[in-house]
Amino acid sequence: MQRGFAQTEYEARTRRAQALMQAANLDAILLTTEADVRYFSGFLTRFWESPSRPWFLVLPAEGKPVAVIPAIGAALMGQTWIDDIRTWRAPDLTDDGVSLLMETLNELGSATIGTPMGYESHLRMPLADWGRVQAGLHGTVQSEAGIVARLRAVKSKVEIEKIAEACAIAGRAFARVPEIAAQGVALSRVFRDFQRMCLEEGADWVPYLAGASAQGGYGDVISPASDVPLAWGDVLMLDTGLVRDGYFSDFDRNFSVGPASAQTQSAHARLIDAVDAAADIARPGTTAAQLFRAMDLIVTGGGVGSDAGRLGHGLGMQLTEGLSLVPADHTVLEAGMVITLEPGITTGEGRMMVHEENIVITNGAPRFLSPRAGREIVIL
Amino acid sequence: MQRGFAQTEYEARTRRAQALMQAANLDAILLTTEADVRYFSGFLTRFWESPSRPWFLVLPAEGKPVAVIPAIGAALMGQTWIDDIRTWRAPDLTDDGVSLLMETLNELGSATIGTPMGYESHLRMPLADWGRVQAGLHGTVQSEAGIVARLRAVKSKVEIEKIAEACAIAGRAFARVPEIAAQGVALSRVFRDFQRMCLEEGADWVPYLAGASAQGGYGDVISPASDVPLAWGDVLMLDTGLVRDGYFSDFDRNFSVGPASAQTQSAHARLIDAVDAAADIARPGTTAAQLFRAMDLIVTGGGVGSDAGRLGHGLGMQLTEGLSLVPADHTVLEAGMVITLEPGITTGEGRMMVHEENIVITNGAPRFLSPRAGREIVIL
Repeated sequence: MQRGFAQTEYEARTRRAQALMQAANLDAILLTTEADVRYFSGFLTRFWESPSRPWFLVLPAEGKPVAVIPAIGAALMGQTWIDDIRTWRAPDLTDDGVSLLMETLNELGSATIGTPMGYESHLRMPLADWGRVQAGLHGTVQSEAGIVARLRAVKSKVEIEKIAEACAIAGRAFARVPEIAAQGVALSRVFRDFQRMCLEEGADWVPYLAGASAQGGYGDVISPASDVPLAWGDVLMLDTGLVRDGYFSDFDRNFSVGPASAQTQSAHARLIDAVDAAADIARPGTTAAQLFRAMDLIVTGGGVGSDAGRLGHGLGMQLTEGLSLVPADHTVLEAGMVITLEPGITTGEGRMMVHEENIVITNGAPRFLSPRAGREIVIL
Repeated sequence: MQRGFAQTEYEARTRRAQALMQAANLDAILLTTEADVRYFSGFLTRFWESPSRPWFLVLPAEGKPVAVIPAIGAALMGQTWIDDIRTWRAPDLTDDGVSLLMETLNELGSATIGTPMGYESHLRMPLADWGRVQAGLHGTVQSEAGIVARLRAVKSKVEIEKIAEACAIAGRAFARVPEIAAQGVALSRVFRDFQRMCLEEGADWVPYLAGASAQGGYGDVISPASDVPLAWGDVLMLDTGLVRDGYFSDFDRNFSVGPASAQTQSAHARLIDAVDAAADIARPGTTAAQLFRAMDLIVTGGGVGSDAGRLGHGLGMQLTEGLSLVPADHTVLEAGMVITLEPGITTGEGRMMVHEENIVITNGAPRFLSPRAGREIVIL
């Protein structure tokens, strides 16, 4: 598959943002996080792992975005469609991009500048430096009103194919789990080997892996792997977020170590049924809350006081992004949205099972990007 | 190796922080980032990859830290030494921990609350929510005056052993590069296979890998791998940040694809000489700037106008943290500081080579945590 995107993709994103900016009376949007900067520039690097340097992209109301970045990124940014690349030698302990950002923003005059301030956002620069930037601005800063998140939520065809490829890679790795997991193998070793298989199957890297293995269900799904060996009767769950060319997959699979109990089989089947119920109504016009309810009805019986958490979320350039499948999220699905369906079910006191698939909303039935799991749990 | 740390480690960190807080007249410190929260709690999870939920740790002037976190983290936080764990069901689209954090902070009365605002820090929560928290506080918020970064910069013995283990793992993976890299192999495949070997050698995961392969030196060290095959005469560089039990290694190695030119050999030898020169003076009392100058003298000849960037940095719970080896950083080295020595040298128009080792400052000669490379570049 071709790496990156054609310039037309970035032009289209920028045009759409600028149309929304005009409606919101914004003269520019300031972006500081990896995914937001990459969305409009194509700047893809794992160097963001280092917290030492801030990176800025200024999206004006007209014209191309302007990069205000550490000099170490100039060569790579120069390979994107961005022309106006302003750099400083970072880290600079007294002025780490503050003046350069301020100058760039002040070229816009007494402008209204938006920056992401809402749900799931953060400002990736020191608060003290942010204070200095604001103090030196000719214009004012306010929320960008969720414009960037709204755009990112609806994926283009080429974005969907990147996510599909990531999902296919994860699917091949999951299919090989019987090679590496069995009674007696330490969970930490399973984690390590599973990541290896993700790489062998084509992942660029594996930013996320969680999972658990415990009798008849697990209590926690975010812990790192312990060295405890898999035991007969365990349910093993692996949940990976792997990346291919900057786009994530995010789904899990459950396995029974030895024959599954009737309860485990039943719980697994209900999880699949819950996914099916959500997929049946996952169409443009359906809301996130409706998907939640369709699954919740099956995994908890629904009703007031259902204790289920989030049963899925948006997916794309980040492991999780955008909407949440919770009762309060009334986001309306649109064709092109990529989401996870992630029902969980209680299997005993403090124990549960979780299943997850990735779909893209289309004008008809959703397309499963993850290779859909069957109702029967795989036996190791 | 034992996972995690004994409770005494967290007690000592907390005590030290509280002593500095008293001197700075702070009633509490609010922490929001993965490394800062983990430093005082031991809360280790890859779940931070998801940007959807904020996580808070409040470190009061006396007593244990208080966790204010999404309910999904309660079980794992319950396994740490933290007792006071307050949770909300996140994501909550209207109140994502804002009220709970505010209540927790307001129990301290009209307190002076510090939070990291300086170099390398950021606030990991939405700006709009931060505004709401501040508006509802009985007390006031200010910078925590760099207390957390100062503590984190000096590693305990048990922390150093974690970093040493990560470095040993990376060292074994680098020793195996001849298994995977040769003329004709795509750089992207080398990246994938190298990460696989890091896992095989014991990495929990591989958050960072950068590198390049080009004739007689490379132009850029942060780009993702292309599918271009290694060519005769290339210098291949791989720079990895792998993690073992929450601590990073961060060093690189260079390889010559086929026999190295005299220029490549000479450049490589000078990089090693630069590391040696820095190691010779890397003692308590030496400054970061002095380490820079020692290396810069060898790789550029020093002098006014030397164009070298950062020639190393602190290392630990993050790939890069703390001091920078630049002329303006006069941080005084202390025993227990773990740093990288990372000289770069120009090998032609737009081409360079970079070499990196990891050391810990002791009361005598520094201890190399990375297995020290020889002056002769390894030939593939």
